[in-house]
Amino acid sequence: MASVKISIIGAGSAIFSVRLTSDICKTKGLLGSVVTLMDVDKSRLDAAYALASQYAKDMKSDIQFKKTTNLEEAISGADFVINTALVGGHDFLEKMRKIGEKHGYYRGIDTQEFNMVSDYYTMTNWNQLSFFLKIAKMMENLSPNAWLLQAANPVFEGTTLISRTSKIKMVGFCHGHYAVNDMIDALGLEKEKVDWQVAGFNHAIWLTRFLYNGKDAYPILDEWIKKHSDGTTPKTPFNDQLSPAAIDTYNFYGRMPIGDTVRNSSWKYHYDLETKKRWYGEPWGGADSEIGWKWYENRLAEITTLTSKASELLRKNEDVKLSEALSANFSIIPADFAKEIKDFYDPSTLSGEQHIPFIDAIVNDHTGRFVVNILNNGVIAGIPDNVAVEIPAIVDKSGIHPEKVEPTLPERIVKWYLNPRMIRMEWALEAFEEKNPDLIVEMLLRDRRTSSYEQAKAVVDEIFKENS
Amino acid sequence: MASVKISIIGAGSAIFSVRLTSDICKTKGLLGSVVTLMDVDKSRLDAAYALASQYAKDMKSDIQFKKTTNLEEAISGADFVINTALVGGHDFLEKMRKIGEKHGYYRGIDTQEFNMVSDYYTMTNWNQLSFFLKIAKMMENLSPNAWLLQAANPVFEGTTLISRTSKIKMVGFCHGHYAVNDMIDALGLEKEKVDWQVAGFNHAIWLTRFLYNGKDAYPILDEWIKKHSDGTTPKTPFNDQLSPAAIDTYNFYGRMPIGDTVRNSSWKYHYDLETKKRWYGEPWGGADSEIGWKWYENRLAEITTLTSKASELLRKNEDVKLSEALSANFSIIPADFAKEIKDFYDPSTLSGEQHIPFIDAIVNDHTGRFVVNILNNGVIAGIPDNVAVEIPAIVDKSGIHPEKVEPTLPERIVKWYLNPRMIRMEWALEAFEEKNPDLIVEMLLRDRRTSSYEQAKAVVDEIFKENS
Repeated sequence: MASVKISIIGAGSAIFSVRLTSDICKTKGLLGSVVTLMDVDKSRLDAAYALASQYAKDMKSDIQFKKTTNLEEAISGADFVINTALVGGHDFLEKMRKIGEKHGYYRGIDTQEFNMVSDYYTMTNWNQLSFFLKIAKMMENLSPNAWLLQAANPVFEGTTLISRTSKIKMVGFCHGHYAVNDMIDALGLEKEKVDWQVAGFNHAIWLTRFLYNGKDAYPILDEWIKKHSDGTTPKTPFNDQLSPAAIDTYNFYGRMPIGDTVRNSSWKYHYDLETKKRWYGEPWGGADSEIGWKWYENRLAEITTLTSKASELLRKNEDVKLSEALSANFSIIPADFAKEIKDFYDPSTLSGEQHIPFIDAIVNDHTGRFVVNILNNGVIAGIPDNVAVEIPAIVDKSGIHPEKVEPTLPERIVKWYLNPRMIRMEWALEAFEEKNPDLIVEMLLRDRRTSSYEQAKAVVDEIFKENS
Repeated sequence: MASVKISIIGAGSAIFSVRLTSDICKTKGLLGSVVTLMDVDKSRLDAAYALASQYAKDMKSDIQFKKTTNLEEAISGADFVINTALVGGHDFLEKMRKIGEKHGYYRGIDTQEFNMVSDYYTMTNWNQLSFFLKIAKMMENLSPNAWLLQAANPVFEGTTLISRTSKIKMVGFCHGHYAVNDMIDALGLEKEKVDWQVAGFNHAIWLTRFLYNGKDAYPILDEWIKKHSDGTTPKTPFNDQLSPAAIDTYNFYGRMPIGDTVRNSSWKYHYDLETKKRWYGEPWGGADSEIGWKWYENRLAEITTLTSKASELLRKNEDVKLSEALSANFSIIPADFAKEIKDFYDPSTLSGEQHIPFIDAIVNDHTGRFVVNILNNGVIAGIPDNVAVEIPAIVDKSGIHPEKVEPTLPERIVKWYLNPRMIRMEWALEAFEEKNPDLIVEMLLRDRRTSSYEQAKAVVDEIFKENS
């Protein structure tokens, strides 16, 4: 049992904070730890604190909780800093998206080829990138030996930027690769007999290795595709791992795109709502259409309401368990969330977030396999060393040991997808580092939605006026 | 005096053949050579033969001329093969462009960001690229020690493709860099006091070094720009070295684009005719607008008529000199062409084409400075070794010795211009090598003029149906 100090920045996402807490409570080697929740939104922070600490109490786990709205306080003396904050929140994203759409940029100017995910902005949310650097700088001074676990998007740009700029230890995390399990389930395979590997960039990963009982399992996928050529009906807007878009992408690139990669496709599937519906299924047209995204925002709002009501109830009633507090308001939350709440109390089921098992591996030498974002340094051929890649790695007390990517990524993927995606990352980082909106204009001159310099200039002027 | 065998493929461009002939006649070390003119168009070949041999006769030069429509015959035993042929000619280009425009692709689908030059197709004229490889293969068998001087476009794609595929000695040539002299003249500088260097890709070169009397001359250019902020009036559609487009490009990239690079800009200057006029000047809107290109085609037609009439006259009248034969029909040719005809007879003035001085350097160790296209092999940082770059080099009997690029190309140019241009080159070559029109569709999905997959598919289907 090791007592470490874990700080969660952006902890106001209460469910995320409870998830991590539940993982800590189920990890013997981390009992006795101090968890500091930090958020600038005091009421959301209070709710998260109430929920997480009640949960630990329910589990009779020896974890000490702190809460603060002060970043310095959270970082000072930490062993692990988990950053999950979105500066400006979804309101900022929607405000900027609206300006973009006013000027003719469907789904906003940050919606770009191979970067269609609506959750974050790579081109215009400089506050988010600045915050990343602020954390890194503060860690250099206040917790120089700590690890930064970067969960906040954009993970690709963020991990690249921080790793290039700062000497702190860091790793970027995303749970997108778990979608490989959706596929394994759909194909009717037994998980423990599958040997899989993914590689690429965050939200741009590809199933490089896919073996079943030691044999190539791609023919099984091909067979499934033949049988389901009409596509399947999505259960949620995010249910796209075997969507027509995913299969068409696979046909062109030769390997299956995994997780958010399916969303991060070219304009081919995203020209308009009708096109999105065709490729990602009815009725939403995927998570990144105006309809799918509204679904997601509503769900977020429901969960915020739920956690807020649950925290009120906990404040009034000291004897209520977290699961009861959440269930009391169960009518307002999506049914599939019920399983997650139940799982919180199952000692054998972790949340699926990689953060706590990673900390356990580092602290207690509890070796594990993770999908991490780190600088390439030769792992993927054809990609520069100083660009963050997402790859499987073995992690233990001595650190992160990337697996060899085998078989390697097909050239088709490197040349036609990763390179263009990488170029946009470099442009976005240069614009941010120079604080130069002219570079954003220049990016938009290469955008299919731009019909004149004036249009690009006008949208950038308005966005950065609002944004400054 | 060395007797070498020089073969010109596509010699039916009569004036180009006369230009090279005049250079040979003025190069003592190459007298006694055999020049073989090859073209598939017999009547144009006959005209070129008549003109070139009459000119050598006028000059009393010891040059032996041969003509053939057979490629094998031209290549067999050659010491130097100069390829200037455009397979399918301008008719093919215009036919394909028309199909593109029918489907909503202004100026044709090959008109792409950083590749706006209307003279050749990189994506769809596979016959041209196949012909490049056919020549190289034939040279390996029939003249394995010969040099290939690649003047035919696309020089960037062509030099890269041939150099990667074949072991023959080769160099790509373009005269675009001479536009630096237009600039030097406009600034009122004395040529011999200017020290300049260009680097980049063909039709994508940048004035990396620009010194006057050993001092940075960019401030002189900046001063000129201040004084001429209203722009200058172009004399021809090609008169763009100091156009608003050139200056705006310079402002963004930090170095001056030279020659055809000014045309090869982003959509910013090319959205439509009105935009082109604004950036390249009235009345044409540059060489690559529908008006400017018509001007160029008319001029080509005039020159073909002129050379055809001149050759008829020479056939009838053995005593007539070439200059007289051309002057007899002078009314139909552009006035500025008169100077070139006069210069043919001036022993101290070479044509400006680099081919013959290059041959002289190789054959007679007559060392010279050239702007060549060869594989990068480390000359430009950030560009792979196996990509053709256009750079200055010293050439002598022992071969091509690239100059060090000093100062280096700014990162802005490598990241924002050369890399995206290079990616399109790689895509185009892959499509050609796989003979895979689906890859052209995929390229068009990244094109600002594409609004649906169906549009891209339809235009590619029609083009490759016509093209097969």
